[in-house]
Amino acid sequence: MPRWTEIVSGLPATVPFVGPEAQERRMGRRFSARLGANESVFGPSPKAVEAMQKAAAGLWMYGDPESHDLRHALAQHHGIKAENIVVGEGIDGLLGTLVRLLVGPGTPVVTSDGAYPTFNYHVASVGGALTKVPYRDDAEDAQGLAKAAQSTNAALVYLANPDNPMGSWISAGQIAELISALPPDTLLCLDEAYCDFAPRGAIPPLDVTAENIVRMRTFSKGYGLAGARVGYAIGAETTIRAFEKIRNHFGMNRLAQIGALAALEDDPHLRSTIFRVRQSLANIGEIAGENGLRALPSATNFATIDCGRDGAFARALVAALAEAGVFVRMPFVAPQDRCIRISAGRPQDLKVLRDALPKALAAIR
Amino acid sequence: MPRWTEIVSGLPATVPFVGPEAQERRMGRRFSARLGANESVFGPSPKAVEAMQKAAAGLWMYGDPESHDLRHALAQHHGIKAENIVVGEGIDGLLGTLVRLLVGPGTPVVTSDGAYPTFNYHVASVGGALTKVPYRDDAEDAQGLAKAAQSTNAALVYLANPDNPMGSWISAGQIAELISALPPDTLLCLDEAYCDFAPRGAIPPLDVTAENIVRMRTFSKGYGLAGARVGYAIGAETTIRAFEKIRNHFGMNRLAQIGALAALEDDPHLRSTIFRVRQSLANIGEIAGENGLRALPSATNFATIDCGRDGAFARALVAALAEAGVFVRMPFVAPQDRCIRISAGRPQDLKVLRDALPKALAAIR
Repeated sequence: MPRWTEIVSGLPATVPFVGPEAQERRMGRRFSARLGANESVFGPSPKAVEAMQKAAAGLWMYGDPESHDLRHALAQHHGIKAENIVVGEGIDGLLGTLVRLLVGPGTPVVTSDGAYPTFNYHVASVGGALTKVPYRDDAEDAQGLAKAAQSTNAALVYLANPDNPMGSWISAGQIAELISALPPDTLLCLDEAYCDFAPRGAIPPLDVTAENIVRMRTFSKGYGLAGARVGYAIGAETTIRAFEKIRNHFGMNRLAQIGALAALEDDPHLRSTIFRVRQSLANIGEIAGENGLRALPSATNFATIDCGRDGAFARALVAALAEAGVFVRMPFVAPQDRCIRISAGRPQDLKVLRDALPKALAAIR
Repeated sequence: MPRWTEIVSGLPATVPFVGPEAQERRMGRRFSARLGANESVFGPSPKAVEAMQKAAAGLWMYGDPESHDLRHALAQHHGIKAENIVVGEGIDGLLGTLVRLLVGPGTPVVTSDGAYPTFNYHVASVGGALTKVPYRDDAEDAQGLAKAAQSTNAALVYLANPDNPMGSWISAGQIAELISALPPDTLLCLDEAYCDFAPRGAIPPLDVTAENIVRMRTFSKGYGLAGARVGYAIGAETTIRAFEKIRNHFGMNRLAQIGALAALEDDPHLRSTIFRVRQSLANIGEIAGENGLRALPSATNFATIDCGRDGAFARALVAALAEAGVFVRMPFVAPQDRCIRISAGRPQDLKVLRDALPKALAAIR
């Protein structure tokens, strides 16, 4: 047997998420509504699609390892320097790199209990010591995270704002308080995958002088390019430079870089997506209400639906919805696991949901 | 300052390779012939291009984290099981994962001196202790690698066959001898990126019962999809399963999976590429000969040209060729750095090379 590292030997062969395709293969049929992965069913900008189609024949060339054009466009977009940005294979990929930069065996790390499993997965892969802080009123508990970071002397704290899976958000002021309460050499990873959908006041202004904050952004949500795998991290130049030490420099797909650049330049498409998401979430809220369930306020592109019972009930509902052709997911940890999570959909997707939900509820009651 | 791990703190912010785009930006103009990265300038299968163009609008969906369809097609292609294959973001990405599975601080690792720098980069990122075995007659020294693995008790040995950057190859028999001489729990990573161009007898039959051999393959070379970032590792089920513990499950671009599948199914295109590569390498050999240089035998899609002088001369020639619009690269380590490395090109690329080479040589002599 190969000599796996001690850490690897102790790890299970786990997957943070099972993809909808695997479920479809198991069921032997396709989902009618794909509303489980917070993808943007409204699609990417047609300009991004066209740019990738045009460039497809040139895919014999490696992508630019510096993602120069995309980074410079992002820098201009955000009013920062290209040196404040590193592009990677989605936030998932960047989280892996960031974790490996900061975490070794036993390194204290703090996150919320029930937050993004892929972060926890990366921490486990290097043997970090993860402390999980419970949610407070279905939102991430900034004070609790600060206290845990202090008491464990964490090297890294993870906070998603707006939050996944609860759709909740905390204010920029609360984040500033968290930052000021952290040990001076603790790095805060602020995952802002859903920032395009957040209300004013939730997203702190970009401060690229702070060496101990990394902001994660993505083209997977608002820009509708989840399958392209393009994320980026924003931070101080010195902090971003550290990624260059260990990242997979030639990891970026060439078309993905081209598509993301075209998507970034199509702001009207992003605005239209945000508008359609808001409409859709209102409709999902109505559908939930018609069925005696309650949609929590959302600062994201998904609705978290309080099913009013326990995790077993919500899990049964997710399974019954899958049976009825609707792919949704749910929080993993109690008491948030009383909820299910439904991504914004087009009218045709919500029609499927409207038909399926009462039937699924009837089936499990 | 963030609390970078001790290993990271000791690492330089280095890049295994500078991309041609960065050189173009520095020069202020485009290369006329892009022959430095062993890309397939003959392009991917038109069927792959069409498949990706058709699927581009669906890029709002994450790719299947299991790469089910591609893995199953590959399994059929190779006459093995899908469980013997893991798909990743190019061989570069898979090498990173494999290294992290086996290598921690001080873990002994063996490679050839002057072989693939990205492998060394990944080993350095986890603090492995790398032993480099010199080439022998411009080829990887299987016996030397075996001896170094024994004396260091290496957990991991890297061997590229056919070799990059020398274009040379060793026989399947030599590889079998190497395997039998390795400590029983040493894993051999056999990088076969260039296998499509190799002569009969260089590629050992696939043996997926051996737990301590991982074969790396890619769509970047013969299939002309370098920018898609699709590689795969072949091994025993138990060995492949270990990748599931730490790999970035959602790292694969959706179009890349679709393009690679279509490319795999277009065997005539691959055959045509191999044919054109052989023709091109013969022509590059003629051009070299006309200029008093000598092309070494190649089992790859590039020609390694012995310039007959030292590394400084070859480096000057690479720079002079860049000045003249031709992107090429060269080996890093003496005495192999007496050579330059020119990827196979189309007639129009070779025309540029034919014009540029004598001028570049004249300029530096």
